[in-house]
Order: sequence, then structure tokens, then C-alpha cells
Amino acid sequence: MVEMRRPITIGEAVKRIMDCKPTGKTEFISINESFGRFLSVDLAATSDVPHFTRAPYDGFAVRSVDTQEAGLDHPVEFEVIDHIGAGQTTSKVLGEKQAVRIMTGAMMPEGSDAVMMLELAKTAERDGKNYMTIKRKIKKGENVSFQGEDAKEGEVLVKKGTLINPGIQAMLATFGYASVPVAKKPVVGLYATGTELLGVDEPLVPGKIRNSNSYMIAAQIERAGGEVEYFGSLPDDFDTCFEAVKNSLDKVDMLVTTGGVSVGDYDYLPAIYEKLGAEVLFNKVAMRPGSVTTVAVHNGKLLFGLSGNPSACYVGFELFTRPVIRTMLCSENPHLRKELAVLDTNFPKANPFTRFVRSTVFFREGRLIATPSGLDKSNIVMSLAGANSLMILPGGTRGFEAGMEVDVLLLEDQEGSEWPW
Amino acid sequence: MVEMRRPITIGEAVKRIMDCKPTGKTEFISINESFGRFLSVDLAATSDVPHFTRAPYDGFAVRSVDTQEAGLDHPVEFEVIDHIGAGQTTSKVLGEKQAVRIMTGAMMPEGSDAVMMLELAKTAERDGKNYMTIKRKIKKGENVSFQGEDAKEGEVLVKKGTLINPGIQAMLATFGYASVPVAKKPVVGLYATGTELLGVDEPLVPGKIRNSNSYMIAAQIERAGGEVEYFGSLPDDFDTCFEAVKNSLDKVDMLVTTGGVSVGDYDYLPAIYEKLGAEVLFNKVAMRPGSVTTVAVHNGKLLFGLSGNPSACYVGFELFTRPVIRTMLCSENPHLRKELAVLDTNFPKANPFTRFVRSTVFFREGRLIATPSGLDKSNIVMSLAGANSLMILPGGTRGFEAGMEVDVLLLEDQEGSEWPW
Repeated sequence: MVEMRRPITIGEAVKRIMDCKPTGKTEFISINESFGRFLSVDLAATSDVPHFTRAPYDGFAVRSVDTQEAGLDHPVEFEVIDHIGAGQTTSKVLGEKQAVRIMTGAMMPEGSDAVMMLELAKTAERDGKNYMTIKRKIKKGENVSFQGEDAKEGEVLVKKGTLINPGIQAMLATFGYASVPVAKKPVVGLYATGTELLGVDEPLVPGKIRNSNSYMIAAQIERAGGEVEYFGSLPDDFDTCFEAVKNSLDKVDMLVTTGGVSVGDYDYLPAIYEKLGAEVLFNKVAMRPGSVTTVAVHNGKLLFGLSGNPSACYVGFELFTRPVIRTMLCSENPHLRKELAVLDTNFPKANPFTRFVRSTVFFREGRLIATPSGLDKSNIVMSLAGANSLMILPGGTRGFEAGMEVDVLLLEDQEGSEWPW
Repeated sequence: MVEMRRPITIGEAVKRIMDCKPTGKTEFISINESFGRFLSVDLAATSDVPHFTRAPYDGFAVRSVDTQEAGLDHPVEFEVIDHIGAGQTTSKVLGEKQAVRIMTGAMMPEGSDAVMMLELAKTAERDGKNYMTIKRKIKKGENVSFQGEDAKEGEVLVKKGTLINPGIQAMLATFGYASVPVAKKPVVGLYATGTELLGVDEPLVPGKIRNSNSYMIAAQIERAGGEVEYFGSLPDDFDTCFEAVKNSLDKVDMLVTTGGVSVGDYDYLPAIYEKLGAEVLFNKVAMRPGSVTTVAVHNGKLLFGLSGNPSACYVGFELFTRPVIRTMLCSENPHLRKELAVLDTNFPKANPFTRFVRSTVFFREGRLIATPSGLDKSNIVMSLAGANSLMILPGGTRGFEAGMEVDVLLLEDQEGSEWPW
């Protein structure tokens, strides 16, 4: 009655998925919508920055050579021949002992090579002409922002696959990317299976529960950067489920189902994959929770059969589905970021298998600390709410004690890791 | 010519802003759109979880008392009187030595008080009846998920102001929140000022630069959780700017302008605030960059006059505007989260004022490490792209060395701090 399945390691399971070589596509979107998207190409400077030599401060543009005699007891006077604000230029060329009043960001006039700061100059007017006097010498290039000093045209500044943050959005504007090449969000189809599932707006009845997995996974898809195509929930009926899965495949880039992958009497997903002719990559992983996760591939599309158990479903998504989404978002670090943390509480449970414990990580005196975010019964949705990480407790251990170092996978991180296994 | 302004401390500046007591509003949205929004009320359980006593595993629901004689040499046989999947219930009541085949998640039948796991039972059929035999005793309550063991009806599970993550979205579904009370996104108006500004789609010309601050701030507003109302860029002309600012105020919850707050000849914001009759909370802060940040309040709405310098603008937004947005999103921790990090490089520059250095933080062996994300010239947009934190280097110091501990403010964090100053 109970089918025997051969568990494989987590690393091997993820490798079999990644070997399917998911690839992303580019789309062009308005810079106004680019925040939070992923660059699909390396971002290179389209011009020098600054693209002209300019004043970083308010003051007077001068020829440094004219200031070399200036000192506390030896004021030097300049004629102020023009006055330019940011965005303005002057056609005048500085001659000996001439200066131009210049505002922050304005282009340096021809002939000038330094800026004397405003507060160090004393101004005067005589016979309709303007003058300023200084008592300090200044070096060539002092208080000048030179063309190209921040970036040279053609220089690659941000790698593809990077999340567009406020600084990158500013950079895109600087380089004139009104339209931005970003990775198209992969469309992730989603079905929940289970006769026990009620809609979120239905009243509770004995024996049934509201479908929470779909909302959880939908949010996980969004957090990973994908687009959710939710198809609804399905009863535990083979034909209905088969048709639904079959008909959804050409509308999506990959499909996630929850439930129906265990070895119970109503677990139809394995048979559905078989009838579809999909290649099953694995159907058992040496881990808890989520050991019955089943992943198949059909016509190049990945089918993720996640457990109906909320914790197993959550972990299965983050380990197996997220890296595919992130790879399609052009990331070279598609996996969850792994870091070392100090365990804050005893965790006496023995571990025959590698266990992922939903955890909260925080800092104490600059060190990363991890603590389980709730009871670790695998059907408890509550502990998911406080989880910002998954603690990895390796199999074959007799439990862990406060103060020990453990690996954690960071769930809210955007940088990821190349290969944490 | 140069107006004298009296600088106040950062803490005092933030306090004057927070004393204006920004408050948020609630709106109800579909659970399908709730990921990434902020709860505007405490989230309480609308029912027990689970809301009925159920089996956490596949197996047989039994009366534990009937198993007490069972042992390796003493098999005990039960009649299997029904068979229920998740979502099903049975009307049968267990009598002596009777069992019900039960699937994960199904409701426990009346009379049963434990579940014998499937793999520990041997099944048989005789005379059209089903039987199962066990060789182990089981305790009352073993392998049972009791009603209310995860959460009790009425219990507050998530505090208001919390960002809705995948686990919380699952919880909302469990409790039937088809419609979710979230904080309405505050509408933040945005103007860039400066005759030097080109549109992102305009070609570069000498002396002018593309407007990047607006795109940067727009992304910062989105990252903070606000909604951007971008009004465009304004030339350095008093009347145009005054009318624009005045007419935008009733369309927004607060207004951010960039540029025009310094003491240059074209810095009109102070005069605009005066003509509006707005109360200026401060116009100089003892910090670098961003010392000329000016904040005013008019008819209960905050007006943030940020510097036109990209770094000063960025820092000013995060320190002064973000906490207002987060407070309106019902957060009790509206300020950037402050943590200790180890400085990874020498920073020899002397600091007469508290300096915020755009930095990248990362982990090394579980410790938070910070390193400047670029050159620290204040007009460099490049270093903003790599910044995920602001390092705080207190004023009055002679520079910092690698290995020293410094405070950092985390820019990508969602938890915030109550008061970091």
C-alpha cells in the first residue's frame, strides 16, 4: 500500500532542477516602473559622469596661477566677468586676474582651473564692475569635479540580475534610460489541491479548512520576483486535476501545485505527471519538512508538486522554485543567501534528516542570532508569520544547544547565493 | 550675502518632525493584493487553529485504551469501520476495538483519541469487512492536533504596522480575511527644482545634467511604502516654484522638493515657505551630507526641502521623510534600523560633523561588516547604487580605522527602530 521512494540529497535535488537550465527574457519598461525589478543586461555608462567639468561648490572660478601670490597680508583682487548658475554656461574666457561667480553644479568656464569657495572671497563693486578679493592661494584642480571622474563612458557599473534600488534608478536616469531593459517576470501557475479546502470567504465547517497555502505561495512567488497566475483549488479527483494541470501548462512558465504528492489514497500528482508524460526529477528528498516534494519537467517547463502541509510547502518553494524564478530574472545568485548565526535557544529534538526550522534572525552586538519563530510542528501556519529565515539543522545530530553556530538561509534578502549546498 | 543659519542636532530635527504627529488611515483591499502592505490593525485569530481536532498524519484513528495490551508478541486487531480523507467527516462513533482509516488533516471521529501511523498497522479483509492489526500501544492524544493548539480565537497574532509577508498572508487566509485592513499608502508629492535639469529622455548638453534625483527619491518613497505623485521639474524661478508648490499641497499628504534650499542665489525654497506662511521646523542640521535640509509644516502637511545634491537628498529623505511615511503606515518602529558593524576599511577623513557614509554591509562569519560603497564625494550618484546602509561616523573625530565598531542604518530592512538617535 505504501509506495517506497528513494530519497536524494537536497543538493542533488536542486541540481537536477537547475540542470533544466531555465532562462529569462528581456522586456523594456518605463523607468518610472523599474524600482524593484531586475536588470536583464549589464548596465554601462552611456556618457562620462560628470559629462562636463564643473564646480562642486558655490564660489568663484579662477585661474589658480593668479592666486599664487595671495596670502593673509597679501590680498589679490579679481574682476568678476560673469555669473552663472547651475545649468548655465558662459562664453567668456578667463584672462589674467579674472573670475566667474559660479554656482554648485555649473560648468567651469574656459581658462579656469579651480574654484575659490564663496565664504573665502570678499566682493565689491566699483564703476559698474564687480570684483572679489581673496587672501589664500589655491591649487590647480582644487574644488573642481572633472569630467569622467565618477564614471567613464562605457564602464559597466551594475551587473545584470541586480535588483533596481533607488541608487540604480538614479543611475538609470543619469544615463538616459527612459526605457529600461529588465527581466520579464516569469509567470508561475498555481493550483491548490484538496477536497478539504474552503475559499477564504467561506465560513468554517467541521473537517474543512480555508485554503491558506495558495495565498502563502502567491506571496512567496511575488517576493521571489515572479508573477502569480492563480488557477484556483481543485478537489481530490484524478480526472479533474489531470485536465486542470494539462490545460494550464501553456499559459505559464512553470507550475506549482500544493498537496497531492504524498502517499495517501488521494495523492494523485505522481499519477498525473506519469499520464502527462512528464519526466519526474525526484519524488523524495532527505529533508524535513518537505520530504515528499516532487518535481517534474514537461516540454521544458518545471512542475513543482509541493506538499499540502504549509511548512513543507513553504520550504519546498524556497529551496526548489525560488532559484528557478531568480535564474529567469537573470540572477547569478539565485539561491537563498546562507549565513552563519548563533542559535539563541536549545533545540533538543534529534534530527535523523536535515531539518529546516522556520526562524527569526536578528542582531545582537553586530552578530547574527537565530531563534525558531514558533513551535515546529509541521502543520503550524503561525510560525511562518514570524519567519525571516530557515535554520539548517544537519541530519544525524542529537539536538542543538544555545550558543552553537548554525547555518541560516535568509528569506528577505535580495542578494542570494550562487550555491549554498 | 551668506545667510547665517543655526544648525540643530539630527535627533532634535527628527523630533520636531515627529512632533507634528503624522497619522495613518485604513483602507480595505483584497487579500490578493495584500503582500507587501502594512497591517493597520492588530491581527487577531477569528477562530481556533485548528478549528477542529484532526489527524496530523495518515493512519488509523483509535481509542488509545484499546491499544494498551498491544505488543510485539501480542497483536491487537481492530475493525476498520470507515475511511475518511481530508475534508471529510464520519458520523460513526468508535466502539471497542474499532478504528477509522484517516488521512492527514481529517477530523478525528467521535470516540477516538489517538492516531496509529499507517506504516505501523497491517491491514486485512475478511467477510467483506476491513481490519487492521497493531503491535504497539499508543498514548491518549498521540498523533493528534487538538483544536486551538496553534492559536485561540481572539488571540492577537500580529501587531499593526507589520509588513504582510507570505506567512502573514497565509494567516489572513486562514482567518477568512478576504478583505484586509491595511494602512493607506501616504501620497508623497515630488518636485525637482533646478534650471540645470534635463529630462531623462533629453540628450546631454554642456552645463546641464539629467534629473536623477526625482527617480531616486521616487524609488525611496516606494521602498518606504509610500505612493509617489511626481509633478515634474521646475526651473529656478521664484514665481513658478511658488505657484507649483502652493497648488500641489491639497493633492498630497506631504511634499518633497529637491534643490533650492542652500544659500545660493537661486535657492528659493526658504522664501517660498515664508510666502506660504509655513512654519519652518529647521533649516540647518549638524550633519554631512544634507546640512541645508529644510523642513516646514503648513496646515498639518510636512514640506521636505531636500538638497539638490544627490547624496544629501538621499540621506535627508531616509532620516527625515521615511519615518513620517512609516508612521502613516502604522509602524511603531518608523526609523531606520540601527545596528553595530565592524568597519572593513580605513576612513581617515576627519569629521567635524556627524557624517553619513553610503555603505555596503555584509556578513563575515556571522558578523555584520560595513564598507563605504564608493567615493564619498557628495555629488557622486554612483556610490548610491551599491549602498544598502548608511554608516554613522560621529562628529568631532579624527577618522576611523578598519576593525573599529561603527553604527550603521540598514536601508533595505523592514523592521525599523523606535528611535535610533
